[in-house]
Amino acid sequence: MTTDVASLDLTANAVDLTVQLVDIESVSQNEQAIADAVEAALSACGHLTVSRHGNTVVARTDLGRGERVVIAGHLDTVPLNANLPARREGELLHGLGTCDMKGGDAVILRLAATVPEPNRDVTYILYECEEIDSELNGLYLLGQSHPELMEADFAILMEPSNAEVEAGCQGTLRVEVRATGERAHSARSWKGVNAIHAATPILERLRAYEPRKPMIDGLEYHEGLNAVFISGGVAGNVLPDECVVEVNHRFAPDRSEAEAQQFVRDFFEGYDVTVTDSAPGALPGLDLPAAKAFIEAVGREVNPKFGWTDVARFTSLGIPAVNFGPGDPMLAHKQEEHVPVEHIERCERQLREWLTTPRKPAESASREREHASAGTPERRSSW
Amino acid sequence: MTTDVASLDLTANAVDLTVQLVDIESVSQNEQAIADAVEAALSACGHLTVSRHGNTVVARTDLGRGERVVIAGHLDTVPLNANLPARREGELLHGLGTCDMKGGDAVILRLAATVPEPNRDVTYILYECEEIDSELNGLYLLGQSHPELMEADFAILMEPSNAEVEAGCQGTLRVEVRATGERAHSARSWKGVNAIHAATPILERLRAYEPRKPMIDGLEYHEGLNAVFISGGVAGNVLPDECVVEVNHRFAPDRSEAEAQQFVRDFFEGYDVTVTDSAPGALPGLDLPAAKAFIEAVGREVNPKFGWTDVARFTSLGIPAVNFGPGDPMLAHKQEEHVPVEHIERCERQLREWLTTPRKPAESASREREHASAGTPERRSSW
Repeated sequence: MTTDVASLDLTANAVDLTVQLVDIESVSQNEQAIADAVEAALSACGHLTVSRHGNTVVARTDLGRGERVVIAGHLDTVPLNANLPARREGELLHGLGTCDMKGGDAVILRLAATVPEPNRDVTYILYECEEIDSELNGLYLLGQSHPELMEADFAILMEPSNAEVEAGCQGTLRVEVRATGERAHSARSWKGVNAIHAATPILERLRAYEPRKPMIDGLEYHEGLNAVFISGGVAGNVLPDECVVEVNHRFAPDRSEAEAQQFVRDFFEGYDVTVTDSAPGALPGLDLPAAKAFIEAVGREVNPKFGWTDVARFTSLGIPAVNFGPGDPMLAHKQEEHVPVEHIERCERQLREWLTTPRKPAESASREREHASAGTPERRSSW
Repeated sequence: MTTDVASLDLTANAVDLTVQLVDIESVSQNEQAIADAVEAALSACGHLTVSRHGNTVVARTDLGRGERVVIAGHLDTVPLNANLPARREGELLHGLGTCDMKGGDAVILRLAATVPEPNRDVTYILYECEEIDSELNGLYLLGQSHPELMEADFAILMEPSNAEVEAGCQGTLRVEVRATGERAHSARSWKGVNAIHAATPILERLRAYEPRKPMIDGLEYHEGLNAVFISGGVAGNVLPDECVVEVNHRFAPDRSEAEAQQFVRDFFEGYDVTVTDSAPGALPGLDLPAAKAFIEAVGREVNPKFGWTDVARFTSLGIPAVNFGPGDPMLAHKQEEHVPVEHIERCERQLREWLTTPRKPAESASREREHASAGTPERRSSW
């Protein structure tokens, strides 16, 4: 470790460690300093095998346990917004990355450093570029270059989820719905057909949309259908011949991508519908033994995950996965993001208990991972 | 006249002269060659006083007649679109500018050259930059630098009007109508308000709009209210908090700009309406003696002008003005623009008769120009 590398004190408590991590600025694609610090600190722990992949750091125990879990968090943040350095006010820690997700990273580092003999083998992954172009996502790249390092019976992503367990995730689909017309000079509009006016029923249908809220594995999902962009227009004196409404459909994981696409096509019947983006949902998978054991151990209520996160990257590999991290996801990416100190402490305490309490016989059963899965490997971050 | 200047043969008939003019490419801001040729050809006519202003050429008779008329045409065209040189097919002349408006320019040049002693004084104006940014418009600039050269009892613009008289013009108004909402992640859309969905009633009202068609001076106008642009959207996974519909209102000249604005505000009641552009209509003014005499002389049906043209530049100076030129205005700016040979010939014949038939006593009456007018000086081209 040279003096150029910021040092992290893994003997500090997780809250102080969060402050240390937040104060190493690590906007996406600027993760070298934080990855160097993380690599150096973990390499000092003799019980871990550490490897570096770009600015992604992997640290593993290899105790020959009958089960392996991944605990992962991303090291990058969205751009600075006059919200560094970290600042504690009472029971809240403020600053860029406090919520998304250096509080979770601190918990990971604390567990990695201080639980030398966990009751199941653990692969800790601290990765780069979650907040930007999904092709740069460290977890995606690791799955491509070293798929064996992703292997596990269960995965926990420490994405902010109010220190509650969020399971599964909804699929997301984007389509362009197109209304057409005929151009004409706006001074003689009766000679043409205004495509923007012709788009009225598209908006009327969206406005009348009633979301499905299916129950799956005891979790209530909540679908959505929203215009996210609208555009049309040629010139200030011309009737436009095209108006495009870009619609984002969020669908519960009991529907396949094909079913969701069909729903959207039927919904906009009479209009040209082009799919521009599609990612499957992920079923909660809470009936798989490793997941069940975790839920029991933390004893928390399980909530459905509405957004798309890297959880789906694991479930698409047949690995049940949940989000379980400090911080309110609604504060992610906001200038005023912050995290309750209590969330960080609770996540650390519960994970520590889960990794150190002697496992029940049922939990040690053979791995039940299925590698077949629902959909193509994903190349996106949380959506 | 140097060999660098393209030469125009003003002894050719107006159709052949149109071909000569078309074949001197003169896309807006590239009018030097054509203006040089026009200036040289007109300067060779001893009965005219010629002046040059940028690439605008003015030629006047000064016979001390009791009345003066302006006959004007622009020299520029919209951009090339693989439609040069001029090409005659039967009774049609094809090519860039044939319709808009070198057929009219040819008529102007023929009259200027071959009617040395017209029955009323004539100011011929051949001007630059009508098709682009209105601040570059040659007629606008001439009105600023040499307002005395614009003075007249009556003005004829040889804009394409199917060789019929088009009088007056409708006003034009653009407004931004804004719907607002609250951003939210599209995975949790129930936390926000979608501004695009909230814009639905704006489009519903536009779709239900019934145009007014008032009769003014015996002409039926036809108003219009059209979305010309729509935009909204933040990101593919965010509920937008703003949707803006840009609306173009064309209003008959019996309404002032203020009345038209009030109409639009009332129409979109409940939404934020911002006026971005406004130009008054022009009353036909056909009751003024010079206009009346022209209409009688050409003996043609008079139509209302729906679009905004430089006609309004004259009417805003209190000078009655009409469009009267060869070519179908619907073909202007089209790749396939063309002009019927018969239109060119008819316009020339009728104007020649009007300028050479001895004037009736009533026509020679004192000038009745009013300099007060309906609205601010205009700075736009045909709209």
